[in-house]
Amino acid sequence: MDQHIFAVERLVKFVESVLIGQGVATDHARICSRRMIEADLRGMHGHGIFRLPPYCKRLEAGGYNLNPDIKIKRETPVSAVVDGDNGLGQVVVTRAVELSIQKAKTNGMAWVGICNSNHAGAGGVYAAMALPHDLISMYMAIGNANHMPPWGGIDLLLSTNPIAFAIPTDKEPPIVLDMATTNASYGKVKVAAQKGDALPVGWMVDKKGQPLTDSQRIKDGFLLPIGEYKGFGLNFVIGALAGVLNTAAFGSAVIDFNKDFITPTNSGQLIFTMRPDLFRNLAEFKAEMDMRIQEIRNSTPMEGAQPIRLPGEMALKREQDMRANGVPVAEPVLLQLREIAKKLGLPDHLDDTP
Amino acid sequence: MDQHIFAVERLVKFVESVLIGQGVATDHARICSRRMIEADLRGMHGHGIFRLPPYCKRLEAGGYNLNPDIKIKRETPVSAVVDGDNGLGQVVVTRAVELSIQKAKTNGMAWVGICNSNHAGAGGVYAAMALPHDLISMYMAIGNANHMPPWGGIDLLLSTNPIAFAIPTDKEPPIVLDMATTNASYGKVKVAAQKGDALPVGWMVDKKGQPLTDSQRIKDGFLLPIGEYKGFGLNFVIGALAGVLNTAAFGSAVIDFNKDFITPTNSGQLIFTMRPDLFRNLAEFKAEMDMRIQEIRNSTPMEGAQPIRLPGEMALKREQDMRANGVPVAEPVLLQLREIAKKLGLPDHLDDTP
Repeated sequence: MDQHIFAVERLVKFVESVLIGQGVATDHARICSRRMIEADLRGMHGHGIFRLPPYCKRLEAGGYNLNPDIKIKRETPVSAVVDGDNGLGQVVVTRAVELSIQKAKTNGMAWVGICNSNHAGAGGVYAAMALPHDLISMYMAIGNANHMPPWGGIDLLLSTNPIAFAIPTDKEPPIVLDMATTNASYGKVKVAAQKGDALPVGWMVDKKGQPLTDSQRIKDGFLLPIGEYKGFGLNFVIGALAGVLNTAAFGSAVIDFNKDFITPTNSGQLIFTMRPDLFRNLAEFKAEMDMRIQEIRNSTPMEGAQPIRLPGEMALKREQDMRANGVPVAEPVLLQLREIAKKLGLPDHLDDTP
Repeated sequence: MDQHIFAVERLVKFVESVLIGQGVATDHARICSRRMIEADLRGMHGHGIFRLPPYCKRLEAGGYNLNPDIKIKRETPVSAVVDGDNGLGQVVVTRAVELSIQKAKTNGMAWVGICNSNHAGAGGVYAAMALPHDLISMYMAIGNANHMPPWGGIDLLLSTNPIAFAIPTDKEPPIVLDMATTNASYGKVKVAAQKGDALPVGWMVDKKGQPLTDSQRIKDGFLLPIGEYKGFGLNFVIGALAGVLNTAAFGSAVIDFNKDFITPTNSGQLIFTMRPDLFRNLAEFKAEMDMRIQEIRNSTPMEGAQPIRLPGEMALKREQDMRANGVPVAEPVLLQLREIAKKLGLPDHLDDTP
């Protein structure tokens, strides 16, 4: 697939101007744009600028609150519930992460739940926000479309419900784990279908539980949880903690944001941050993290396997590369973005000029 | 395999008397015995009375501190580090869970890390201790033998590192998820090898990454993480949080407790508990948990599949059944227990009398 390369700041400004053009307040547009391009920079392009066209579709349809009153509903020194008032997910979650960090710095830890939010992109982006503050973080979210049944069932009641963690290190790349609780994301499946590729066994099964590998049949298939019933259990727990606990949508209450662009999604997320020095000296903790990371990276590789990587290591390499050499945007996405730019009469149409 | 059935309290008393016979203080023996039989009652027999013979071997070898000074090393209103002083794992973790519950009731939540502990059995047992207090809990532990390499490697630097969650409900069985981050436990693999059964694909691979299904070759094999690199990442994060953060053993520092019965294992665990009513009304939270559970249980099953079960549901059924009808003990385990009883001159030799 043809790719075009753009400087980071150009894309950030572009997304910002599109959102402003759609009626989003300048400060919200700026935050949302940063978080989206940060997803691209981690290599999670499925949560980056790729999402701008569907967000625009939702903005045009009136599915977002353009002037949300994002407020704290309940609060203690170590917790809060942030009500996003149907604002942009990236903005709502950023507010919650900042609140959690501020509380954790003062009180040791903080768990902030979120309701009335929207799709917020890559969990790793939010988990990583804790790292400059030398905090450990955990993020959970409920996906915005149900593509998975309960283990042993066929009704689509569960999404890819991701979990992310960030853990500070000293000189090594910080640990940033960002994983769906399904073997594959629906995005990956759709990309395979577009290309006409066969699906690897383990990505999907049909209604009888048989492996579904023909990517032209994905409408008959379900995503599979990691580790079978274990991933189902973890997925459900994430739903309870990011959804039910926050009065956010889970199970049959989840709105399929690919089909319905108007109904508020009431998306739920949570962010937990914590000071490592509650438990041991920070410098010693970070030094041992480095040591354990090196021990694993330098261990014997399997014959013919890729080099051993720690969670977040490749994302950092990708970010460094893209900051130096630009961010790739796939041609089909670029064509949609140019269309949007023309429609809004923006100065930058993302032509292939530096 | 032949099974013999014993009343719950008879087994509790038996384990207690064995531990006392091995020199363990009465209060510690009582706590350890309760936790071990609770694992049996959840159906996690691999962490129940099955473990008494190896614990005895370790006690005899001087691998435990018989009079540990279990103390709090660091403490804030929402956190603590419990130093187990090489006491019995079940006793150390119980102390930490009780401390966490007490702090969470007062301050909303508490994360208690543990060092200088030992193998403590089933995570679900500890997570479930939060439920009578209407608290949510999360438990993580580092396994006591490394059976897994990093993803893409062949050096055994990782264990089955389990994670457990408990979430209160109203009338439905509470959610108790208790899962290793490997597809199979080493115990399951060993049972298959004993029986001469083939291993299912996905449990183990050989040094070239090829599926290893011949259970007579398990010494050449490695356990596999759930969801491939995802499970590896989660396993490493658990190691960082339950181990490195608490100055407990992780990676190459883990002592294989199946081979070394003397060196202190410095096992690491963590327990986090939290009040749901920080986020919403408790009764409403529990009522919606019930509703989401019922929605899943009553959804359409896959043709030919088992009924849909929620995490913890079977464990509760098993407990109810065993409390009414007794706890099964497999014959090979029973023979070892009888041997121990004779050696210690205990009144009860677990003969097949009621």
